[in-house]
Amino acid sequence: MHDSHKTRRPKADAPKGFRDYFGADVTERKAMLDRIAEVYDRHGFDALETSGVETVEALGKFLPDVDRPNAGVFAWQEEAVPGGGSGDWLALRYDLTAPLARVAAQFRNDLPSPYRRYAMGPVWRNEKPGPGRFRQFYQCDADTVGSASPAADAEIIAMLADALEAAGIPRGDYLVRVNSRKVLNGVLEAAGVAADQSDAVLRTIDKFDKVGVDGVRALLTAGRRDESGAEIEGVGLSDVGAAPILAFLTSRGGDNAATLGNLRAAVGTSDAGAEGVAELAQIADMLAALGMGPDRVVIDPSIVRGLGYYTGAVFEAELTFEVLDEKGRKRQFGSVAGGGRYDGLVERFTGQKVPATGVSIGVDRLLAALRAKGRVGGQAGAGPVVVTVMDRDRMADYLAMAAELHAAGIRAEAYLGNPKNFGNQLKYADKRGSPVAVIQGADEAARGVVQLKDLALGARLAAEVSHDEWKAQPAQVEAPRADLVAGVRAILAREAQRAQS
Amino acid sequence: MHDSHKTRRPKADAPKGFRDYFGADVTERKAMLDRIAEVYDRHGFDALETSGVETVEALGKFLPDVDRPNAGVFAWQEEAVPGGGSGDWLALRYDLTAPLARVAAQFRNDLPSPYRRYAMGPVWRNEKPGPGRFRQFYQCDADTVGSASPAADAEIIAMLADALEAAGIPRGDYLVRVNSRKVLNGVLEAAGVAADQSDAVLRTIDKFDKVGVDGVRALLTAGRRDESGAEIEGVGLSDVGAAPILAFLTSRGGDNAATLGNLRAAVGTSDAGAEGVAELAQIADMLAALGMGPDRVVIDPSIVRGLGYYTGAVFEAELTFEVLDEKGRKRQFGSVAGGGRYDGLVERFTGQKVPATGVSIGVDRLLAALRAKGRVGGQAGAGPVVVTVMDRDRMADYLAMAAELHAAGIRAEAYLGNPKNFGNQLKYADKRGSPVAVIQGADEAARGVVQLKDLALGARLAAEVSHDEWKAQPAQVEAPRADLVAGVRAILAREAQRAQS
Repeated sequence: MHDSHKTRRPKADAPKGFRDYFGADVTERKAMLDRIAEVYDRHGFDALETSGVETVEALGKFLPDVDRPNAGVFAWQEEAVPGGGSGDWLALRYDLTAPLARVAAQFRNDLPSPYRRYAMGPVWRNEKPGPGRFRQFYQCDADTVGSASPAADAEIIAMLADALEAAGIPRGDYLVRVNSRKVLNGVLEAAGVAADQSDAVLRTIDKFDKVGVDGVRALLTAGRRDESGAEIEGVGLSDVGAAPILAFLTSRGGDNAATLGNLRAAVGTSDAGAEGVAELAQIADMLAALGMGPDRVVIDPSIVRGLGYYTGAVFEAELTFEVLDEKGRKRQFGSVAGGGRYDGLVERFTGQKVPATGVSIGVDRLLAALRAKGRVGGQAGAGPVVVTVMDRDRMADYLAMAAELHAAGIRAEAYLGNPKNFGNQLKYADKRGSPVAVIQGADEAARGVVQLKDLALGARLAAEVSHDEWKAQPAQVEAPRADLVAGVRAILAREAQRAQS
Repeated sequence: MHDSHKTRRPKADAPKGFRDYFGADVTERKAMLDRIAEVYDRHGFDALETSGVETVEALGKFLPDVDRPNAGVFAWQEEAVPGGGSGDWLALRYDLTAPLARVAAQFRNDLPSPYRRYAMGPVWRNEKPGPGRFRQFYQCDADTVGSASPAADAEIIAMLADALEAAGIPRGDYLVRVNSRKVLNGVLEAAGVAADQSDAVLRTIDKFDKVGVDGVRALLTAGRRDESGAEIEGVGLSDVGAAPILAFLTSRGGDNAATLGNLRAAVGTSDAGAEGVAELAQIADMLAALGMGPDRVVIDPSIVRGLGYYTGAVFEAELTFEVLDEKGRKRQFGSVAGGGRYDGLVERFTGQKVPATGVSIGVDRLLAALRAKGRVGGQAGAGPVVVTVMDRDRMADYLAMAAELHAAGIRAEAYLGNPKNFGNQLKYADKRGSPVAVIQGADEAARGVVQLKDLALGARLAAEVSHDEWKAQPAQVEAPRADLVAGVRAILAREAQRAQS
């Protein structure tokens, strides 16, 4: 065949770093988000949905480098068309906080103040894709804009604990750890850390979980040799300068009161530090009044949170149970949510300070945790009842059977493939996880009956019994056509009971 | 003040053509989509969520013009970075069908066949924004890929009717009209329309609703003068050539059988036309077996549907009730959903024909219709109970009151703004649509009571009674602190009862 005119076919691939979610991946995430939204709503937070696209200018963070404004974000320039495109640079949002800051500024005269809002939806990051790292993922945020009160932080922290429990993480399996960026700044002040060193110090502190006290001490001063033998340069503080920072990191005491006492010592004479400790003390009191005991929330100075924009309380929720990693080693599941106070984001637009605080839940990680604990998924009978097609001229009858099952609230469908090979229909039902196949050939139609095949029971019998026994097909029963719904219900009920027992 | 160093502030605006959805805008849409998803699920359709970003190559349609591949879509080129960006052109999806075709091709060996899926989510169009026209909006689709059977079309059409009713459109307020692109092709064949004229003929037929039989006759032949007096060029068919097309358009009879009879005559000797009529007849039979009477679905040849990719049955759901337009004139609400059979979309990728059929619901239009009919929104008491702050040192107590209400399932929040001015707190509660304000000053705290202010009743009294009567504040009751939840519940119940009566 001469194929020089054959047109090149497009590749059927999602772009690199993007993925598709099928069936339960979608519905289980949705069910989890619904439960979290209910908690947010009950706390007086209103839903907000901004669009996926913002101006690069409003998103901020990426402005300076005009030649390459899309580092980290997906960005493009609109064509400048009279009456149409503005020539603006547009970008996909990289989180839900930047759009909230824009909304809080744009609608500042219309929104209630304080404004409590929650938002759930996809965000996009133009990062190098990797295993398990995707360029579109879900976030689920709640924020209070316009309140400087530590009560706003305490409320968000308590609500996070409630949300995790509503999602299916029982008390005892998570811990929210709370710290204060102000306290940290006070400690840096007390330690005499120069402004140009503070970023390096923050990055070092963030490694505390990994390298411990001695590791951080070395990294803050002269440096250390890592496991591979490589020399890691230190920040260059003196031992005396590093001491307050180490005191800070290790200041978690037996209870919040002890921790707060240690922090008061660690910030020395720094006013910012004293203010931060006082705020943490208020937050601790309010959390106690809300019934948030140390099994749920603790003050823990070793939490830093990477983002530069935090200005007060910061917190992180960790799951404390162990899971097996890809190499079969036990490890703690780790962080699934975090947040804190950011008083500068709205000011970018308005020039006026607008205090704000909020939390972001990592939706995919939390869902993975619920799956790891067997708390979602695996529902038996999630597949539809399949009405098979024995006689293609009677499609209307088969569709009507499915419709009868729908009207009874039962998930069901008629087989719509080529009905010639009945074995293919049963294979299809198997692939769909179908609990029951309905069969009606000419003989059954004449007698006014249907065959109901319990596919789950059939599969178990096929696995457990001999071929002869299986051939006896005890998993198949005949029912009058008029009893279609009742017969299917009986099988579904039996299987549901079996799944519970 | 010297302000030469003042940095330029970013504009706090959503990009042109994009909008934000607040509160009930989000939750009412979500509730509607949840009801529709339940119908889709019950019919055996599985959820699918693809990402917002696809390769321009996979999306198709926009390929030829390489210099400007983003006409109609938002597109950008990835940087070609070793191990990172591919240099591909990426774009935001403009509908949910193109990504489905890509998924059906990419996962053809894993997906059940036929594959029934539903999808809900935002799509993006790079169009000139206008009043009420946005560049991001929701679609809500269901499609069956891999079945050529008219039963698949009938199932989708019946499911659309069920979905509209589940969303809140009662029977009698909508009508699904069904036609066939194959029948239309048969008519064009019978009419001897040249291939290069068929697009112009399709566009003309699409105007039938507006210009009527005589208008279409004129436009198909020599042209006509429109209302403004401008000459509109005709397609140039002869009267004899236009006759079968006019016969087709006006072939809707008193019932489906009569319509099908007229269509048989209209397609003359065209094989494609005869096949189309036979398929429509099967669809009509199956819809009848599904109990879809002429109050819900009819065969109506005047439905064409613009999209070029349809290859068989096409259909459209219209809302038949009248609403007032922006000028106060009565008009029918019009189309809220449409779809049809498209057998070519997956073939683009695989080279093999994969028959498919589906429906897309215009989410924003359907929601607007429900609002116009008063079937969503306006729930009294959707705002939270506001626990006011009389004594800022007792924030922990106020937070605890809100938490008690949360635990009882009542939407509530403590006031987090500056509590100095109590009037501002009540204004805030008013803005939030709060049903009840909880008040506890030092006096009440000492006596172990709370004041509960019925804000809805208070507002009615303020509107209806004299200032002196209002000052008597019958809308405020005192309750023991221990009865906080019971007292709030009593007021909410009274208001709920009032809203119903």
